[in-house]
Amino acid sequence: MPKVVDHETRRRELTDALLRVVVRDGYDAISIRSVADEAGCSVRPVQYYFADKAQLLAAAHARVTERMGALVTRAVHELGGSPRPRAVVGTVVHAFLPTNDEARHAVIAYHCFFAAELTQPSIRVPGADASPNALARLIRTQFERHWNRKPTAAETRDIQLLVTTLSTIAATVIAGYHDIEDATSLLDHQIDRLLPPNNKR
Amino acid sequence: MPKVVDHETRRRELTDALLRVVVRDGYDAISIRSVADEAGCSVRPVQYYFADKAQLLAAAHARVTERMGALVTRAVHELGGSPRPRAVVGTVVHAFLPTNDEARHAVIAYHCFFAAELTQPSIRVPGADASPNALARLIRTQFERHWNRKPTAAETRDIQLLVTTLSTIAATVIAGYHDIEDATSLLDHQIDRLLPPNNKR
Repeated sequence: MPKVVDHETRRRELTDALLRVVVRDGYDAISIRSVADEAGCSVRPVQYYFADKAQLLAAAHARVTERMGALVTRAVHELGGSPRPRAVVGTVVHAFLPTNDEARHAVIAYHCFFAAELTQPSIRVPGADASPNALARLIRTQFERHWNRKPTAAETRDIQLLVTTLSTIAATVIAGYHDIEDATSLLDHQIDRLLPPNNKR
Repeated sequence: MPKVVDHETRRRELTDALLRVVVRDGYDAISIRSVADEAGCSVRPVQYYFADKAQLLAAAHARVTERMGALVTRAVHELGGSPRPRAVVGTVVHAFLPTNDEARHAVIAYHCFFAAELTQPSIRVPGADASPNALARLIRTQFERHWNRKPTAAETRDIQLLVTTLSTIAATVIAGYHDIEDATSLLDHQIDRLLPPNNKR
């Protein structure tokens, strides 16, 4: 009798194994073979779920986004009932800082993929900007709740700037250019500009 | 009679060959062999000038900084006599945008090194923050010329933010997340905040 396999679970396990390889050994280390070794299986199941390296990368890209999304959602949920707009934005933005392995690994993997995309346009994942766009919408919504108006063109740029630079600022902590306090103050400075902390709204 | 070799020139040629390999084929492609192939020589001279891959990387890192420095210096020089502070800062910042191959290649190489540093602390180059620090000092000096005072703590963060995010914003153009107009407006928005364009000083 054949084993019952939950395909989604198996696929996710292999993708997570790939992410561990990237975070530990860098983008160079990715191969069907290294993912199989990391997952403790033969190359057969890896090849079964992912026809080639490009599919493996696309899945890993999507999985990083999914895991960061889950981290952010959990952090906001922990704020409880009806959090103030500034608390929501602060919590979301701070969730990207490498203060835990999940965020640390996501930031490393994101940067490895981003650098690879610069030299290899073929691995660019369609819709990779969905995640920054969703983050910009979330911040914009909180802004509108806070001020009860739409952001101006200048404020819209400030939101875009915060979203664009978030993972870079998180990564500079891992690379040792900033300590966590510097990085936090660079992010909070941008949040304070959009949503002043002493405003009761 | 042995050939007269200008060691500095030879070393720079090999480092530039390495940068071409990174920009074209990504960080994975770096090896003593691929650099030799790119430079059109045997592995012997590469090994002579660079004992191992780590030395090759450190030299490439320094060379990217040197080439970007030259690009920026030339752009500022072309402003002529006594340029206004805002013109200097605008010129320096815009020089990083991938509107020419030199800047494009520097931004790609910088991001490949940065991503590799995240997973391999051993390749971090001592003093790699010299270049962002010099850029922050340059902007600070122009700020002081413009306003005839020192920046406040908030303004100092804005300068730090501009420096930290400059190469990310440049890279998002190469990766296709922003077009050049978006990227320019994100940068100009930050410059305008520090040095308003209509101020005559």
